[in-house]
Amino acid sequence: MAADPGELVARARDGEHRAVARLISLVENASPQLREVTAALAPHTGHAQIVGLTGSPGVGKSTTTSVLVSELRARGKRVGVLAVDPSSPFSGGALLGDRVRMGDHATDDGVFIRSMATRGHLGGLAWATPQALRVLDAAGCDVVLVETVGVGQSEVDVVGLADTAVVLLAPGMGDGVQAAKAGILEIGDVFVVNKADRDGARQTVRELKNMLTLRDGSDEWSPPVLRTVAARAEGLDGVADAVAEHFAWSERTGALARRRRLRARSEIEAIGLDQVRTRMEGLRGGDALDGLADRVLAGEIDPYAAADELLSRA
Amino acid sequence: MAADPGELVARARDGEHRAVARLISLVENASPQLREVTAALAPHTGHAQIVGLTGSPGVGKSTTTSVLVSELRARGKRVGVLAVDPSSPFSGGALLGDRVRMGDHATDDGVFIRSMATRGHLGGLAWATPQALRVLDAAGCDVVLVETVGVGQSEVDVVGLADTAVVLLAPGMGDGVQAAKAGILEIGDVFVVNKADRDGARQTVRELKNMLTLRDGSDEWSPPVLRTVAARAEGLDGVADAVAEHFAWSERTGALARRRRLRARSEIEAIGLDQVRTRMEGLRGGDALDGLADRVLAGEIDPYAAADELLSRA
Repeated sequence: MAADPGELVARARDGEHRAVARLISLVENASPQLREVTAALAPHTGHAQIVGLTGSPGVGKSTTTSVLVSELRARGKRVGVLAVDPSSPFSGGALLGDRVRMGDHATDDGVFIRSMATRGHLGGLAWATPQALRVLDAAGCDVVLVETVGVGQSEVDVVGLADTAVVLLAPGMGDGVQAAKAGILEIGDVFVVNKADRDGARQTVRELKNMLTLRDGSDEWSPPVLRTVAARAEGLDGVADAVAEHFAWSERTGALARRRRLRARSEIEAIGLDQVRTRMEGLRGGDALDGLADRVLAGEIDPYAAADELLSRA
Repeated sequence: MAADPGELVARARDGEHRAVARLISLVENASPQLREVTAALAPHTGHAQIVGLTGSPGVGKSTTTSVLVSELRARGKRVGVLAVDPSSPFSGGALLGDRVRMGDHATDDGVFIRSMATRGHLGGLAWATPQALRVLDAAGCDVVLVETVGVGQSEVDVVGLADTAVVLLAPGMGDGVQAAKAGILEIGDVFVVNKADRDGARQTVRELKNMLTLRDGSDEWSPPVLRTVAARAEGLDGVADAVAEHFAWSERTGALARRRRLRARSEIEAIGLDQVRTRMEGLRGGDALDGLADRVLAGEIDPYAAADELLSRA
């Protein structure tokens, strides 16, 4: 039962939650209507402030997101939340525990929450996330929070391309060196040390500030380091302030326009690559690729020669 | 000063460390000689057992890797180590601390250690890691350990495609739910609870075993859950045994052949995609992409139409 994409977009803009959910499903599953949907969304995008939120597992991302949503709601913002989770039938049950906390907002018409699966083919995150953001943007959200699980390369890329990137840490969860390893120090516009009532919070803040002084000084924005106790809803007003301040600064200095252009470039490229990948995988149901893989394993050809052959047929 | 790739490969096979390092640099930097190098390596690959090692930041991956190398050396194995780190001039100093621990093996002719940078364009990990593995394989390593930092999608993919995947956890570093979130439970062939002398180790082992009973039962291999205290070099003999056992099982049942085929497929695809990406980015020095990005931002065209246009020119 296919709905008209244009009509769905209109209903989403009217604030109808089911229409928003339906649109995200259409883009997430790369439905045949995907192109129509994306085309219908295009004229209505560019309003929302995209805020990325990341940190190591266990720092309290879900709780922080939930309380930050409350804070933004209190400021009259329409809020979207995109929680990027690895898709796993196995871990599905376990994940529910977190999502349940979002239940506070389940009955709020001004909040749109969506968990997204991202496992599967390489580049899935780069490809699907911007499409879902477009839906929430077109639906009239003022702020869209993208919460990513893990600290891998694709996750860092997604958050780094947000208008404002919030990096969460927690005392004892891994010190500054670990954060540096994960590559998240470079991308943060706002740093938050959560669980700030725990031992070691002061040291984590100090370490973090020290490491941040080593950041490339050409950037005019000095990322603040804030403290929160999300489980007691403490300190999130400061985070909301800092996020708003960074956005205003970005708009004023042109940093926003530059980052959005990078985001659009990355999105276009990801779509283009996905199309090439689809063509490559589609060759005789993958037989061609299997045959090439076997010849590489036998040492008959090298993988570059195999890729050449594959591309020449795709 | 270009060396002949064939000669470099011959010298690497003779155990010359500088030749191995040089070859990895050539593949990592996608030098003009990359194709020649890959072709020269092709006939000499397929011997090494590829062992992936992953876990959240802070579980003790570097220490575990170092002690495991000692254990494998004691068993007479020639060992390669590929430590996949996010490249960051900013965090470079911090990373040294870890690498220094590997100093134990610095003077051992039977150990080849290499840190690899992976940040940069999407898919870098999928593209560069197999090339470096080929070098270490062709250089005559019996076992190559690939240690990945972080638990993101690309990292999980790389480790999941190893012949044997070792997943590290630690008590209190994030419980089973966090591991499930990161998607690493599904890919582990051997599980290791490190820092097993800490409080909560028993509970972590129990939780992990419970979660593993939920795994797809069609697989005949039951992943063992082992305990180690890598900082005191305890328990790594058991890990080496389990890794050898899994490899023997894989060889016997055909699981190894299937996984290697998947790995070759993924490698060929990554190379093919990288070539397409290079072509897309090369269009008039990226001007074409910038122009398309601006039109997408203005809502004039949607990103799919932009990708179509880009591909038609690439």
